[in-house]
Amino acid sequence: MKACILAIGSEMLTPFRVDTNSLFITDRLNTIGYDVRLKAVVADEIGELVRVIESALDWADLIVITGGLGPTEDDMTRDAVARVLNVPLDVDETIVDRIRERFAKRGMTMPEINQRQAMVPRGADVLANPNGTAPGLWLEKGSTALVLLPGPPREMKPMLEAVIALRLAPGSHGRGLFRRVLKITGRAESDVDAQAQPVYGRWTTQAVPISTTILAVLGQIELHLTVQAASQAEADIVLAAAVQELQAALGTSVYSVDGRALEAVVGDLLRERKLTVAIAESCTGGLLASRLTDVPGSSDYVDRGVVCYSNQSKTDLAGVPEALMREHGAVSEPVAQALAEGIRSRAGTNVGIGITGIAGPGGGSPEKPVGTVSVAVIVGADMRVRTFQFIGGREMVKFQAAQSALNMTRLLLLGLPGGREWAERK
Amino acid sequence: MKACILAIGSEMLTPFRVDTNSLFITDRLNTIGYDVRLKAVVADEIGELVRVIESALDWADLIVITGGLGPTEDDMTRDAVARVLNVPLDVDETIVDRIRERFAKRGMTMPEINQRQAMVPRGADVLANPNGTAPGLWLEKGSTALVLLPGPPREMKPMLEAVIALRLAPGSHGRGLFRRVLKITGRAESDVDAQAQPVYGRWTTQAVPISTTILAVLGQIELHLTVQAASQAEADIVLAAAVQELQAALGTSVYSVDGRALEAVVGDLLRERKLTVAIAESCTGGLLASRLTDVPGSSDYVDRGVVCYSNQSKTDLAGVPEALMREHGAVSEPVAQALAEGIRSRAGTNVGIGITGIAGPGGGSPEKPVGTVSVAVIVGADMRVRTFQFIGGREMVKFQAAQSALNMTRLLLLGLPGGREWAERK
Repeated sequence: MKACILAIGSEMLTPFRVDTNSLFITDRLNTIGYDVRLKAVVADEIGELVRVIESALDWADLIVITGGLGPTEDDMTRDAVARVLNVPLDVDETIVDRIRERFAKRGMTMPEINQRQAMVPRGADVLANPNGTAPGLWLEKGSTALVLLPGPPREMKPMLEAVIALRLAPGSHGRGLFRRVLKITGRAESDVDAQAQPVYGRWTTQAVPISTTILAVLGQIELHLTVQAASQAEADIVLAAAVQELQAALGTSVYSVDGRALEAVVGDLLRERKLTVAIAESCTGGLLASRLTDVPGSSDYVDRGVVCYSNQSKTDLAGVPEALMREHGAVSEPVAQALAEGIRSRAGTNVGIGITGIAGPGGGSPEKPVGTVSVAVIVGADMRVRTFQFIGGREMVKFQAAQSALNMTRLLLLGLPGGREWAERK
Repeated sequence: MKACILAIGSEMLTPFRVDTNSLFITDRLNTIGYDVRLKAVVADEIGELVRVIESALDWADLIVITGGLGPTEDDMTRDAVARVLNVPLDVDETIVDRIRERFAKRGMTMPEINQRQAMVPRGADVLANPNGTAPGLWLEKGSTALVLLPGPPREMKPMLEAVIALRLAPGSHGRGLFRRVLKITGRAESDVDAQAQPVYGRWTTQAVPISTTILAVLGQIELHLTVQAASQAEADIVLAAAVQELQAALGTSVYSVDGRALEAVVGDLLRERKLTVAIAESCTGGLLASRLTDVPGSSDYVDRGVVCYSNQSKTDLAGVPEALMREHGAVSEPVAQALAEGIRSRAGTNVGIGITGIAGPGGGSPEKPVGTVSVAVIVGADMRVRTFQFIGGREMVKFQAAQSALNMTRLLLLGLPGGREWAERK
């Protein structure tokens, strides 16, 4: 089943707005077996709107249109659809009453202009909007269904869920696209793909084929596995086997197969082991502590963090000896280690993490260029320290450094080697 | 001049990928006077590709197509364009040689399949790709120009810049869309719009009309002003006057008219005044320190930060008396003030910031629900403390708290009242 998603509105065609509605819609449609083949953002211009809708009617089983249902002259989704279907627009008095009531509840009179929102192409079913004035519309033309929804996500999302539950899902009989995501860190994309491709390459020809997408963002690689299956149960069996095969091939660099972020994975390991953590970070400037505390319930294991930007603060807050910084430089493995040890013993936690590096753009030298970061992690009697050379600008270096510190912590907590993959990047 | 942007590739139609290329392309095209009327993401299917391109040829002066220029069978942008223009595909031996050379440089032999990348629709101009194997293509059909570029941003961006400089900009004679962005914080969108609308409403009918878009994200509102002008100089005059008018209407809640982020604005104020800052944060978990240190050169004024997640750490790191927490609770204005004072006196900085609150989802109470945050800022002898009630989940509360702390710091540094807008949110 082929679907098309259209977002209407000139404001969506500026350089400032990303259409994120379509990601949500795609995800929800995929689960009931619709394959999104085209998505478009169209200006508030009736001619262009009509052309795009007409062209989608040629091939799509479902067209979801968001936006352009407001009360102003710019809102012409209703008019465009009526023109394409060649039907008149009628005023629906029930809608007028409902809008008038919404205004009345806030002690306001409905502006005349809002009457436009009650115009309905003849033959359409009205979809209730519990969170706004613009109702949605359901229409059919031949074998194609058209769903018109308002643009604001908090109005659109519950309305789409209702349309799926009541009108679309029953036809899919449980059939749909099902997904799993493996998250990987500490390795290059090409390296991951070289190891994973022989595995997922075989899956394209099996009875229930799996398609695989590799998505590399900084400091993290995601493998998205998708199957079209007759039921959730069938998909679960196929995907569980696939995930296992990939984990076997990729080893301990896979940190999550259930969508959890790396900071949540580390947090869960700390909680399970009833451990607490303290952090002393320099170049990451608080990012590591902030990521760890993004996780709900992290106050169970995060005791404290210190951001030691000045050398004096490294001594004050984590007891790093001045002489150590003079001898090795503030960015060095001994200083990373002293930060981790110092904050851990002062806080009395089980785990200590120390980070020191050069985030740039200034501060680099031939021996220690921008992007040089030393990380130390201590868990009980175990200590690991590594030096990385990261690429990119200031925020990219900060993110990669925090990511590497989290991954080193994960591996040490699991008793796994920090391993070869790190040495390569040194 | 009307433009259409097409992104080709089924992987762009999953729920995981946002098309950000089109934002860059829109921005660059706007500056030379092109108005983007449609953008679409199309699956790797020649039929659909042909249909979309054909439809755009009817109305667009410029069609920019990204992606689908790789070496595999899935890459069919070249084939689709050749079919639409009804011309054959020829092998361009110069391209073959160049690709072969790229592989040879890395000690590799060009795979046969890469020969596909040298297929050129007859009549096309080849656009050099300094960062990859896929060359771009320039074609014309009637009065419409088609520009084909590879999908990866680091290949696409310099190629688009070259096409604009050499082929598109000369025709615009300096004419284009020019923009200014005002950034505002500490106020509700409806409130800002009510004050700004009477101002920008007048601009739509003036000699050089300005269109205004209001963009509200959490803790921040942006007003985007756009003019279509004959030259940068003409636009500068119109926009400078408009910015001044809006600043007069909106007052000190406007923190930036030059694109700077709030943390950079605060950083510049600190640097100008030769002041240093230390931060003691609880519920924001390091986010405030991390945002301040996202700014290049922030080591000039950020001395240190402490993340006091446990009550013990509030005492250890910022000298907050246990009795004070017992009396008022850890989330209270006296504790925020003690955090700011404690970290400031220990660090010996000019400015101290203290934040304590309940980020949720747990930890709330009827008197202090989730989202309650107290912030204190001290600059020399001046102190200001406020309590906010923020909406949203954990990360939203963290962001708004950091944003409010930055804004309080900005206003105090400028000697401006922290004012009424805060009291409203209390």
